[in-house]
Amino acid sequence: MAKKGASISGFPEWLPQERVVEQRVIDTLRRVFELHGFLGIETRAVETGASLLKKGETSKEIYLLSRLQEFGQDDAPVESHLGLHFDLTVPLSRYVVENSGGLVFPFKRWQIQKVWRGERPQEGRYREFTQADIDIVGDGTLPEHYEVDAPLVMVEALEELRTLGLPAAVIHANSRKLSEGFYRGIGITDVDPVLREIDKLDKITADQVSRLLQQDAGCTAGQAEACLRLAQVTASTADGLRGSCASLCEEYGIEHGSDPYALMQQGVDTLAMIIDRASKIRPGAVVADLRIARGLDYYTGSVYETFLDGAEHLGSICSGGRYDNLASQGNRTYPGVGLSIGVSRLVSYLLHTVSASPSRISPACVLVAVWDEDSRMVSDRIAAALRSRGISCDVSPNSAKIGKQIKYADRLGIPYVWFPAEPGDADPVPGHDQIKNIITGEQEDADVSSWAPAPDYARQDITAGN
Amino acid sequence: MAKKGASISGFPEWLPQERVVEQRVIDTLRRVFELHGFLGIETRAVETGASLLKKGETSKEIYLLSRLQEFGQDDAPVESHLGLHFDLTVPLSRYVVENSGGLVFPFKRWQIQKVWRGERPQEGRYREFTQADIDIVGDGTLPEHYEVDAPLVMVEALEELRTLGLPAAVIHANSRKLSEGFYRGIGITDVDPVLREIDKLDKITADQVSRLLQQDAGCTAGQAEACLRLAQVTASTADGLRGSCASLCEEYGIEHGSDPYALMQQGVDTLAMIIDRASKIRPGAVVADLRIARGLDYYTGSVYETFLDGAEHLGSICSGGRYDNLASQGNRTYPGVGLSIGVSRLVSYLLHTVSASPSRISPACVLVAVWDEDSRMVSDRIAAALRSRGISCDVSPNSAKIGKQIKYADRLGIPYVWFPAEPGDADPVPGHDQIKNIITGEQEDADVSSWAPAPDYARQDITAGN
Repeated sequence: MAKKGASISGFPEWLPQERVVEQRVIDTLRRVFELHGFLGIETRAVETGASLLKKGETSKEIYLLSRLQEFGQDDAPVESHLGLHFDLTVPLSRYVVENSGGLVFPFKRWQIQKVWRGERPQEGRYREFTQADIDIVGDGTLPEHYEVDAPLVMVEALEELRTLGLPAAVIHANSRKLSEGFYRGIGITDVDPVLREIDKLDKITADQVSRLLQQDAGCTAGQAEACLRLAQVTASTADGLRGSCASLCEEYGIEHGSDPYALMQQGVDTLAMIIDRASKIRPGAVVADLRIARGLDYYTGSVYETFLDGAEHLGSICSGGRYDNLASQGNRTYPGVGLSIGVSRLVSYLLHTVSASPSRISPACVLVAVWDEDSRMVSDRIAAALRSRGISCDVSPNSAKIGKQIKYADRLGIPYVWFPAEPGDADPVPGHDQIKNIITGEQEDADVSSWAPAPDYARQDITAGN
Repeated sequence: MAKKGASISGFPEWLPQERVVEQRVIDTLRRVFELHGFLGIETRAVETGASLLKKGETSKEIYLLSRLQEFGQDDAPVESHLGLHFDLTVPLSRYVVENSGGLVFPFKRWQIQKVWRGERPQEGRYREFTQADIDIVGDGTLPEHYEVDAPLVMVEALEELRTLGLPAAVIHANSRKLSEGFYRGIGITDVDPVLREIDKLDKITADQVSRLLQQDAGCTAGQAEACLRLAQVTASTADGLRGSCASLCEEYGIEHGSDPYALMQQGVDTLAMIIDRASKIRPGAVVADLRIARGLDYYTGSVYETFLDGAEHLGSICSGGRYDNLASQGNRTYPGVGLSIGVSRLVSYLLHTVSASPSRISPACVLVAVWDEDSRMVSDRIAAALRSRGISCDVSPNSAKIGKQIKYADRLGIPYVWFPAEPGDADPVPGHDQIKNIITGEQEDADVSSWAPAPDYARQDITAGN
């Protein structure tokens, strides 16, 4: 039915052997999230236009849906249409409000799903991709310790992915309160535009950012210089962070008793706590980096970005922060803190830069050979017996010459070929069946009730190619 | 940010404890598919309008996408728009053609994904739901044994779901060739409309179908009666099937040497093979039922529907068949056979009729208590040690009175609460920590390096409520 058609730009698809890598990444993330007691949820792919249009900078890149029957004839406003979600945070906030009576707070949830961005097709931009999110949402209040717990879960998850060839990941943390306090302390009143320009530091030079701060964000040359000085501060210890912030306050004359100073100090305290506790649990995994701004204006406390050693050009592969108003309902507010891993980008890096690949394409560990079609049932029974013991099996598609059957196994990377005892036998004769490891060439007698693959060949291992 | 908003009709979402059931269903299906050597793939959510509009009866219920910026101003024809896939078969056929050079044939693939149908909102109809598909796709040819292999994999998967409370499933099989041969043998030339009317037998009465056959499908009263007679045939043995078909041929004068007879006999042979082999491997799981028609006109051989004992009103929960032209590319054709489970409908049945529910909402087996915020690190270390041994842990959100911390565990169904040895200790003292099973009330000394949950409390078990 289908004719050859080009793939659609921005909608990545993987071959089965590549999908094994993606699936392993997803399984690993889920396992770590569940080890930490996060509850899995899945939300519908669509939200109302009204709900999608409410939020931050990406909200302009939305796919709206129309039923075929109504296509082009529907004058309803965009807000009342359905659109595909562009992240997992908008759905989470709606889900929490809709189900608040049925949830236990603090609500710790993980969610791994596709998201869509209705961008113009262009090289290297995904329009469909998978995100893996964790968030902890409180009812009214949310203890500060979650601001270090959440990034540490992500560090642990990313650490597990190093067996697939992922470089070490370091989370760079900042605090909105710290930056905002400092900006106000040096006389800036409109803070959001400054954060948006500072957020560009990983894409353009400090000089260019300085110009933008003066042209578009209302800064004087001196304020721009001060903002860039703050953005240069990094620290891997709480004391280092406190020291750097204290000198900057002194240098720029931010007075101890002032409101901006108090706000900044709140941020310094939280960030120092994060660095301190993280360094005790996983030294080097989380650093303070006051350049981190996160363009989205809904963050209100800690913000995080994550970079891979030697692959900083990828940009942040895991970002997030604290938002004191994730959702609200009447007088009730739901503060949250969470991070999101860009799974598709990570998988693309593993496949194309690290050349991660599975030891075999097929999940099957064994191919059961078939002597002739009349005895296929014998081979089926052997396969069923092995499967009942948890050993994944395929049965030869045909009863071609054994060399061809072995070739089929070889092309799928299936390490073992099982030879039933004698053609035409109703049941395999224990001890007379044989199994051959087609990688090592070893062949031996085998019994369906006791044979097991050697540990090296038991599962689909994934290894980096370089 | 979000305000209370009604859910959107047709887009089901589950609470975390319900999602545990759905996730278990999906995990179980995947495990069985992989035990049988099926390769997992995932395809993008969108196809071109042209590709979506090519196929069977559901093709009218499509969601088309528009970028927000172009909404309402885009005059391109529907065919060049992107739309959400309404099944996993259209994507598979495209995927096979696009990647034919990188696949090993026969290509056995499993795929579990959301699909969307742009239907008018109405009670009880899903517009977003999850399907779980397996297909085996050949390059040019596809051996007949896959027509019994495929349904048997699904039977095994559904059998595994009985531990969650699903009733026994029986696959009802027919052959398009059998029906078509018979229809032609009694003088019907336009077969597709007849199949479409026969397909309605599980929704309307035989009398109503008879009227439709005469009014809309061009049958005489005698032909309509014969079609309904054929549709009444069921058989659980190959001999029974052959006998019934032979009598009907005799009764309606279908001659042995004729083309229609030969076509019908091909169908009888394949169906007899299916019944015969299935009965040897899993007695009673597959029956011949000549009522099964499948409205979609792309099936060319075996067709399957699956009903649950005592829940036949649900309709078929797993359907499929053989299509000799799943895809084509120049002279190359790709025949396939496959089945699709309607996961969302199954999960809804498990949740709402069987009342399946997990033993706990949280994946965590242990909640580590926190004596005071200064000693939170002690609790964190205990949790980390347990997690490193594969035991899922949560740490108390706060250092409230122990009764409140136990209550939090209780609300999430977490069976164990761990009490660190002494407040303020830098490290837990082996043998002085205690663990309490809050369901049984038992409390005992515990050591993070050796303690393990009792088997009954180790994992989230799912049980039926009735």
